[in-house]
Amino acid sequence: MKHNLLIVLTTLLLLSCNKTTKVNDEVLVRNTNELQNAITQAQPGSTIILANGIWKDAKIKFYGLGTKDAPITLKAETPGEVFIEGQSFLHLGGTHLNVESLYFRNGYSPKSSIIKYMINKDSIANHTRVTNTVIEGFTKPNRSTNDRWVEFYGKHNQLDHCYISGKSNDGETIRVFFTGNEHINNHHQIVNNYFGPRPRKGGPRAETIRVGDSKTRFTPGYVNVSNNYFEACNGEVEIISDKTNYNSFTNNIFYKCEGSLVLRHSNYATVDSNIFIGGDDSDFYGGIRVVNTGHWITNNYFYKIRGEQFRSPLAIMNGIPMTPLNRYKQVVDVVVANNTWIDCKSPFQIGVGQNLASVDVLPKSEIRSAPPIRTTIANNLIYNTKSDKAPLINHDDMSGILFKNNVLDNNANVFSEFNVFQNETIKMKKINNWLYVPETNNKVLDSVFNGYDFERIKNDLFGSSRNDNNKVGAINQLAAAENFKIDKSQYGPDWFSTEIDTTQPNVLKASSNPGELSKLIQQAQPGGIIELTDTEYSVSTSLKIDKDITLRANGENKVEIIYKGKAHTPLFEMHPKGNLKLQNINITGQGNQLTFAPLAENMASAYNLFIEDCSIDNFNYILKASKGSFADSINFKKTVIKNSKNGFVLAADEKGDYNAEMVTFNNCEFNTINQNLIHFYRGGYDESTIGGVLTLSNNLFTNCGKTEKSGLLIKTPGIINVDISDNTFKNNNVKLVALLWGEKNNHHKNNTLINSGEIIVEDQQKLEILY
Amino acid sequence: MKHNLLIVLTTLLLLSCNKTTKVNDEVLVRNTNELQNAITQAQPGSTIILANGIWKDAKIKFYGLGTKDAPITLKAETPGEVFIEGQSFLHLGGTHLNVESLYFRNGYSPKSSIIKYMINKDSIANHTRVTNTVIEGFTKPNRSTNDRWVEFYGKHNQLDHCYISGKSNDGETIRVFFTGNEHINNHHQIVNNYFGPRPRKGGPRAETIRVGDSKTRFTPGYVNVSNNYFEACNGEVEIISDKTNYNSFTNNIFYKCEGSLVLRHSNYATVDSNIFIGGDDSDFYGGIRVVNTGHWITNNYFYKIRGEQFRSPLAIMNGIPMTPLNRYKQVVDVVVANNTWIDCKSPFQIGVGQNLASVDVLPKSEIRSAPPIRTTIANNLIYNTKSDKAPLINHDDMSGILFKNNVLDNNANVFSEFNVFQNETIKMKKINNWLYVPETNNKVLDSVFNGYDFERIKNDLFGSSRNDNNKVGAINQLAAAENFKIDKSQYGPDWFSTEIDTTQPNVLKASSNPGELSKLIQQAQPGGIIELTDTEYSVSTSLKIDKDITLRANGENKVEIIYKGKAHTPLFEMHPKGNLKLQNINITGQGNQLTFAPLAENMASAYNLFIEDCSIDNFNYILKASKGSFADSINFKKTVIKNSKNGFVLAADEKGDYNAEMVTFNNCEFNTINQNLIHFYRGGYDESTIGGVLTLSNNLFTNCGKTEKSGLLIKTPGIINVDISDNTFKNNNVKLVALLWGEKNNHHKNNTLINSGEIIVEDQQKLEILY
Repeated sequence: MKHNLLIVLTTLLLLSCNKTTKVNDEVLVRNTNELQNAITQAQPGSTIILANGIWKDAKIKFYGLGTKDAPITLKAETPGEVFIEGQSFLHLGGTHLNVESLYFRNGYSPKSSIIKYMINKDSIANHTRVTNTVIEGFTKPNRSTNDRWVEFYGKHNQLDHCYISGKSNDGETIRVFFTGNEHINNHHQIVNNYFGPRPRKGGPRAETIRVGDSKTRFTPGYVNVSNNYFEACNGEVEIISDKTNYNSFTNNIFYKCEGSLVLRHSNYATVDSNIFIGGDDSDFYGGIRVVNTGHWITNNYFYKIRGEQFRSPLAIMNGIPMTPLNRYKQVVDVVVANNTWIDCKSPFQIGVGQNLASVDVLPKSEIRSAPPIRTTIANNLIYNTKSDKAPLINHDDMSGILFKNNVLDNNANVFSEFNVFQNETIKMKKINNWLYVPETNNKVLDSVFNGYDFERIKNDLFGSSRNDNNKVGAINQLAAAENFKIDKSQYGPDWFSTEIDTTQPNVLKASSNPGELSKLIQQAQPGGIIELTDTEYSVSTSLKIDKDITLRANGENKVEIIYKGKAHTPLFEMHPKGNLKLQNINITGQGNQLTFAPLAENMASAYNLFIEDCSIDNFNYILKASKGSFADSINFKKTVIKNSKNGFVLAADEKGDYNAEMVTFNNCEFNTINQNLIHFYRGGYDESTIGGVLTLSNNLFTNCGKTEKSGLLIKTPGIINVDISDNTFKNNNVKLVALLWGEKNNHHKNNTLINSGEIIVEDQQKLEILY
Repeated sequence: MKHNLLIVLTTLLLLSCNKTTKVNDEVLVRNTNELQNAITQAQPGSTIILANGIWKDAKIKFYGLGTKDAPITLKAETPGEVFIEGQSFLHLGGTHLNVESLYFRNGYSPKSSIIKYMINKDSIANHTRVTNTVIEGFTKPNRSTNDRWVEFYGKHNQLDHCYISGKSNDGETIRVFFTGNEHINNHHQIVNNYFGPRPRKGGPRAETIRVGDSKTRFTPGYVNVSNNYFEACNGEVEIISDKTNYNSFTNNIFYKCEGSLVLRHSNYATVDSNIFIGGDDSDFYGGIRVVNTGHWITNNYFYKIRGEQFRSPLAIMNGIPMTPLNRYKQVVDVVVANNTWIDCKSPFQIGVGQNLASVDVLPKSEIRSAPPIRTTIANNLIYNTKSDKAPLINHDDMSGILFKNNVLDNNANVFSEFNVFQNETIKMKKINNWLYVPETNNKVLDSVFNGYDFERIKNDLFGSSRNDNNKVGAINQLAAAENFKIDKSQYGPDWFSTEIDTTQPNVLKASSNPGELSKLIQQAQPGGIIELTDTEYSVSTSLKIDKDITLRANGENKVEIIYKGKAHTPLFEMHPKGNLKLQNINITGQGNQLTFAPLAENMASAYNLFIEDCSIDNFNYILKASKGSFADSINFKKTVIKNSKNGFVLAADEKGDYNAEMVTFNNCEFNTINQNLIHFYRGGYDESTIGGVLTLSNNLFTNCGKTEKSGLLIKTPGIINVDISDNTFKNNNVKLVALLWGEKNNHHKNNTLINSGEIIVEDQQKLEILY
């Protein structure tokens, strides 16, 4: 049945018998031919050195049979000076290989992965290591083309001290595969890496690490994810999605990541001594979300995690009774002990995902009606410098949870509901701007958990023993905590710095001479500012925006830009990473063009629009998204938009994806926009992604919707977060201003509706299910 | 939430602090009061001795806190002379307890279990042991009342050297529970026990051992079931039902058990070095049935296992795509290596349970369309002294299985279909009547499974090392195998023998004097024979049959029995264990009575009827089952049944249960039975039980069914095995003779139908699903 595999394996084994001599040869290679030769000739102990410089289109298949004592090494001549660019990848097969100090940039892999611990099913990697390597922005040009950057197969492979950032296309950054006996129980190590920013993707399949899939929820993994630094890993609601058993997530720092560590299809995970740092600047920073069986969540520290529901600091989910394999299993036998939450919003949310209200619009196999059982939440500490209205939110039935010895200092505001907390006053010492440690603290109650294995919790967050004077919360010893600071040098390559120069932005002056504006935009450095010094500018071809750039009037008076380009072309053509700010500019079109539009394809990265104190007049579309394009932020303030056929159309994508994350209009005026005033769309139902945010506040809408066939002024089908507040709608010829989805986070208040239809909230909406 | 538990536990722990002195006291107790006192006063090292004799209604709650070095012991004064009878049980709580040498008989537990490793949720047993103990026929009076005989809770508990037999009521003999963190990872030991006969129950919930349930399919068990002897454990299709992970089943002997070791909801089971001995006398002896993920099935030996489908020697099942938790998961990552099958029928059945043909009558979540994948079947040996038509049956797609180095000696009849076997001639040595060992043998192919962990298979079935000259099949060394014999002394208590005296049956002579027949039946020993010496007997009250007894004519001429009892009473009242044989007797009723009927309730055990060369005339019912009653065998040969309103009604049960296992009519005549000629019924659909067997061969049916409202002569709804062959149906006024269920094992052939309707086969029948 699988004869080919066997023949090849047998051959390889025979070859390997001739290769047991250990050598210490080093060979410097200068091109891929030399490299391939060196790989073929490598023996245990060989070192292959890639010469400094740019290696373009390097399709490296590194197969070798090293030994534990004499691995085969592939490394850069000088760390940081070997650049892998173009269409390149590095796939590994064999055993005991090392790869060191490469830098992937300016390109992408033409395959399903950049680094893959398998060449083909007959050449799987075991005991191999990739270290000290950078992958930066090596993202596929088409955002909707799927790949992973690192694919783990085999057993005992390692990725350490790497820096990885900027994946903006579809697919997890790292995935561990479990496609057979030869890949399970694999003990892979993902340690001491620096996972730099991953932008919001708008939809699922954008985790930073995914371990397995729903079909592997019975499979033992023993994958270890430890001592990594995650910064702004905002791809989707799951930073890490754990889908096999017995994996460990310990001593990681999650710094301002808009997602959670999610125990999605896994069981018996160890989640210990992680630090989650959030802030006031986002409501999306998440903590730990719990599904399934037997997890131990201990010694973790959460600071200003303000996410809600699926992104709660601690989200313990409801399950589906007798769930299908790919859906939510009831939480059973979970232990949450000795964790600390500081200034988090509703740190405990229990029964998250309970959706009995949707029983009429969802199939029975989607109804999460099984609350957590046989779960223990004990010896935790919650401390708030400002009191929290609801430190615990109960979505269903908590009688299956044993709460014991959880101490709450809610800044004098006692929370006694559910009788789950001991309300106390704790004296805290602030060690730095996110770390608070109790100076006095309650002892833990171990003894009552006899038989529950609480003796497993040997040390605290910073490694201090819990043998003596064991305390509630994540930190047992003030002294060790006082010495703690984040040491970025332990994450990522030793030769690579993530520090960014913060220089003053360059300011360029543009006159209205034909072509000058376009030329200056092209010449400007990222972050540059162009001041328009004349009063009126005529533009005849699209302006290409492919970096962070600001256009603003020179003085206080507004400047006029008149767009005379062809029909169907945009004034501002948004390219990947285009980040456009306009201030004090009046824009006028010819009625048949677009004000803003992303490229029709290859929008590898997101674009942004920040428009303030402007006006836009006489276009066919103000903004029209293309399929696969994604705007992270579209933000209009104090801007007038008028006399156009269509407004903002962000409705080109499908199947759970959507075209923009944060869409905000504040203090704007919309006048005589005939149709599609705002059409913001997400197709299909995938409840684990929670995106699309539309905020309309203090705007005036007049005389819009004349030719709107749907009869609906603001169309937001499938968008999860909509807030329409304090707006005035006047003389808009539509049946409805908006049709909101009550069960999701759709709200309206204080709007004035004059001769404009009404706003209706439908609590439940029926959508196509995507999985 | 669970404060009571905590208070009690805390109290117990405080008490335990005062009890650390180790003592060596022994106390003899004579009644339950003294026993209770002794338990209360016991300290580490205490021994409580139960005085010889009968302990009636002993409700023992044995709580104590022993230590590893000084356990607390409860034991019989003399092993085998302490009988626990009446309504009794033994529940254990605390730690390090021993129970030795008790004998449970003549009674039943009034609770859900006899032996339970928990007194209540605050008093769970850990590190306790029950040894050298017998539970024999301690079965609840009502067969449909559910209990278990041994319930495991807590951790590290043991049941060893016990003899357990005769459970005939609903519920597994042993169940291991996993109802919380305090019961998982429990490492319970079930070792060196002798599991004696468990009769066919007729429906599910009659396993001998069940480990967990469908809700625990993610839970690690580490339960060890080793070195046990299972004899005629025929309760249902599953001898053992494994439903948690990482359990071991090793070195057990399954002797003539009509079921299988079933990996039902478990994963990563170790099934090594077990012996399955069947025979030609039953088609129900089973082997190993495989569902789920990651099992290793190695070194097992199968002799004359002739079960089919679910009971195949090796049944690898199809799964349901994205199955609900309580249904069939696809087989993945399973290894079947180094096993031996001797004279088995179709030893490999792959894709068992594939039911795509039922797609119209079953919900989608019942369709097993996912064939096994990533599974390895290698280095096995199949040897047949008579050639087998199909050593492998493929029910679906086998491309996901790697077959390698499986050797077949099919008695010169090459089987090359599917290309999965190496056909060879093996020289075998017959060691005893079931053990065949190769004198020469092929080597295994380890090397091709590099990375597959085949080095795990260190020894063979009899413990010989596989390091040198490793061979295919379960046995690596002829020498060690030659010395093997089953040593029954290592199973069960040392003081208890399972050998049965085989004495000649007693023959009594009964004249027709009033009351004499009834009296002799009462007086006869089990196995006794009563010969009727006169020609005509008048019986006025029911004859009570509560043992194995034969009634037969003295000579060659038939004897007449005329039943003159009240209406609605049976001539033969069948009691539990009633086993009635009639030979050469003509029976006549008054038209309003029953010939045979079990008790209306408390039919704790099955009854049997063997009727040969008789005639039965003029009754209301020939046989009418009561709810909860069960006949193991109903066997009529060369018997005339006539002039009665109803025939055989076995239709009192519901929900997957049924009233008889083997119903056989051979060479009989049915004449003028007006309705319910045969009504044999099983309600509801539970595809994992495969019971109800109706065999009709060479019978003559005349003039029956006159008042049959259903229009159906032979009614068998839900019965899985029906064979109607070589019968003649003449002038029966019905629409249909039978309506058979084609998808199940329902067949008909060579029947002659004259003016009697027809036999129809419906391939698919729609039934209520029970789970």
